[in-house]
Amino acid sequence: MMDNSANQYTIFAKGEKAPADYFTGTAWIKSLVPADDIFNTVIGNVVFEPGARNHWHTHPGGQILIATDGTGYYQEKGKPIQLLRKGDTVSIPPAVIHWHGASPDSAFTHIAVNTNTQKGIVEWLQSVTDEEYNSYQ
Amino acid sequence: MMDNSANQYTIFAKGEKAPADYFTGTAWIKSLVPADDIFNTVIGNVVFEPGARNHWHTHPGGQILIATDGTGYYQEKGKPIQLLRKGDTVSIPPAVIHWHGASPDSAFTHIAVNTNTQKGIVEWLQSVTDEEYNSYQ
Repeated sequence: MMDNSANQYTIFAKGEKAPADYFTGTAWIKSLVPADDIFNTVIGNVVFEPGARNHWHTHPGGQILIATDGTGYYQEKGKPIQLLRKGDTVSIPPAVIHWHGASPDSAFTHIAVNTNTQKGIVEWLQSVTDEEYNSYQ
Repeated sequence: MMDNSANQYTIFAKGEKAPADYFTGTAWIKSLVPADDIFNTVIGNVVFEPGARNHWHTHPGGQILIATDGTGYYQEKGKPIQLLRKGDTVSIPPAVIHWHGASPDSAFTHIAVNTNTQKGIVEWLQSVTDEEYNSYQ
């Protein structure tokens, strides 16, 4: 049985399995702050198992990632993959096409802060191919 | 010499000492995301040493706290002190008078997400007295 609680090594419970429609590999999403019209901010924690990543997507109101554990990948369309390590943040402007996930040999955990959600939260695009995922140099 | 770097136990470097004008006791602030007019979101990490707390204050655009380590206190004016533990979040609506900090016997770390910063970030009020701080039941 999967232990889905937080423990001394993690901050949050793992949450729900991320939907296969928008993720490649296994990832877990724990909702922390739901949508509302006071804060206009949606926050969740995502744990990516090694090799897992989400599909290409955009955020109409932008998103800020806060890396909290492991080693991850972040890529904007047309640019090289960037490595993300514990303590790194990434500010993703509205409409920038991108994806994020774990590196091949390490799990990766980030807090995702969706900003200006009155403009929308996410628009999903195509999956990240193995060729794209393996392009890190 | 104070070691101010992140290590295997912490996510962020401790940052700068919090200003005595707005804090009682010793706390450390690491800026993670500065103010801008794209994300309208300012994020920082705060480490409170045991007994440390900030002054009463409000956020014109609201704030969300994400507790990541230790045991802390949160209080809204006219209400009892609430205990905060690793993994807890608190959504503080605009204009609500409140303070936060460590409990007396444990350090406390939280990420502070200031939302809707186009409306303002923070307005500081009076300090939290020892009587107020010691009112936790």
